Amino acid sequence: MLTLYSFGPGANSLKPMLALYEKQLDFKHHMLDPSKFEQHADWFKKINPRAQVPALDHDGKVITESTVICEYLEDAFPDNAHPLRPRDPFAIAQMRVWTKWVDEYFCWCVSTLGWERVIGPMARALSDAEFEEKLKHITIPEQVTKWRNARAGFPKEVLAEEMRKVKLSVARLEQRLSESPWLAGPDYTLADVCNFAIANGMERGFADVVNEAATPNLVGWLKRINERPAAREMFAKVKREDLTPRKAS
Amino acid sequence: MLTLYSFGPGANSLKPMLALYEKQLDFKHHMLDPSKFEQHADWFKKINPRAQVPALDHDGKVITESTVICEYLEDAFPDNAHPLRPRDPFAIAQMRVWTKWVDEYFCWCVSTLGWERVIGPMARALSDAEFEEKLKHITIPEQVTKWRNARAGFPKEVLAEEMRKVKLSVARLEQRLSESPWLAGPDYTLADVCNFAIANGMERGFADVVNEAATPNLVGWLKRINERPAAREMFAKVKREDLTPRKAS
Repeated sequence: MLTLYSFGPGANSLKPMLALYEKQLDFKHHMLDPSKFEQHADWFKKINPRAQVPALDHDGKVITESTVICEYLEDAFPDNAHPLRPRDPFAIAQMRVWTKWVDEYFCWCVSTLGWERVIGPMARALSDAEFEEKLKHITIPEQVTKWRNARAGFPKEVLAEEMRKVKLSVARLEQRLSESPWLAGPDYTLADVCNFAIANGMERGFADVVNEAATPNLVGWLKRINERPAAREMFAKVKREDLTPRKAS
Repeated sequence: MLTLYSFGPGANSLKPMLALYEKQLDFKHHMLDPSKFEQHADWFKKINPRAQVPALDHDGKVITESTVICEYLEDAFPDNAHPLRPRDPFAIAQMRVWTKWVDEYFCWCVSTLGWERVIGPMARALSDAEFEEKLKHITIPEQVTKWRNARAGFPKEVLAEEMRKVKLSVARLEQRLSESPWLAGPDYTLADVCNFAIANGMERGFADVVNEAATPNLVGWLKRINERPAAREMFAKVKREDLTPRKAS
């Protein structure tokens, strides 16, 4: 029995979710509502003490960290007919250079700009007292700082620096995708799944950086992934009613 | 044929080096001299365009990123009698949470304080013109910024923040090692190798944070790894003459 706790098909939550759909594994989806700070609720901290999604419960064992969950699915279901990890050791290493890069670099610059746009207004909608109450439930000190920065608005120099990194990241992806159909080589792998999780939607959110004229290969790659049956099924199935919070069973 | 390019048995270079010794794999060691900026030399950029060590050449294929190299050794030598990765999928995931954490968090705070102490003086020993000449050969923009910051001296608030993170990291390791002999569970794995790479020597460099009284379990774990035959052999074999730079073959 697999249960995925997530914010839905975007950012880090998308990684294991798309992997589950690609691998056609049955799973229960438990969507948490970030606007209600559900990830910091006591019931969820019993599942992941670090109070972060995604988390995967597999027969009572909880696996955390989006990329670790993705590799876990390859390890736990080795006979699955839809592998997302190559078999050749050198090819696996190429895949991991890309999954590591998105976790250590690409996701952070996109994340800060996303927090400025989305989390900032959400945090400012709270009174000081309400906001401080929410912070009490966050277990990671850096997360508390990030919430405070988002509420105050990140300094302009920080935003400029993050945008520089976004542009560098996009250029790196475009360069790679101009020479290879998929990031790690000839096959669609977790390198694509994990980078897609962050890059999907950038044609809208970062339209001046990611567009048909400036980054045709990146746009083509995003389109190819969006058109895969697994992605279509994932986006179609996660409907609004899923946002209704449910208690953990 | 395996050739490891490294700075020797410390920091990220230590990870694949200790793994090679633990697995008793024959390899040629090519030590680069950081004080001569050898990692930025053209001959080495042909091996790793990102101009970073460690890098592993395996029969002409180059694998980069220390943790990726470590996992590569497990994938490429599956029948090796000295595995550093568990076989159980859930145990592998626990191991990866720790190798990911050292790469994304623990290594950075220790690194900045190390740069302040070691790289700063090295950079200040150069004239402005010499320093700018060195920077021209660095391919990663963030590395250029880090060199400049190290030469100028990192701001006090940055150093204080990094020290806060070091203390938090040490507390996390101590807590974990008070409940488990090894980081990922009952077995010595890459979780230990990769965290040891950063934590080894902290009893000297961070004596007020890591010591017998404050962190007995961490100190005991460091000692246990240092006493392993592979670690003893590694530290004994890497002698001063290895620092003489050799041209890549």
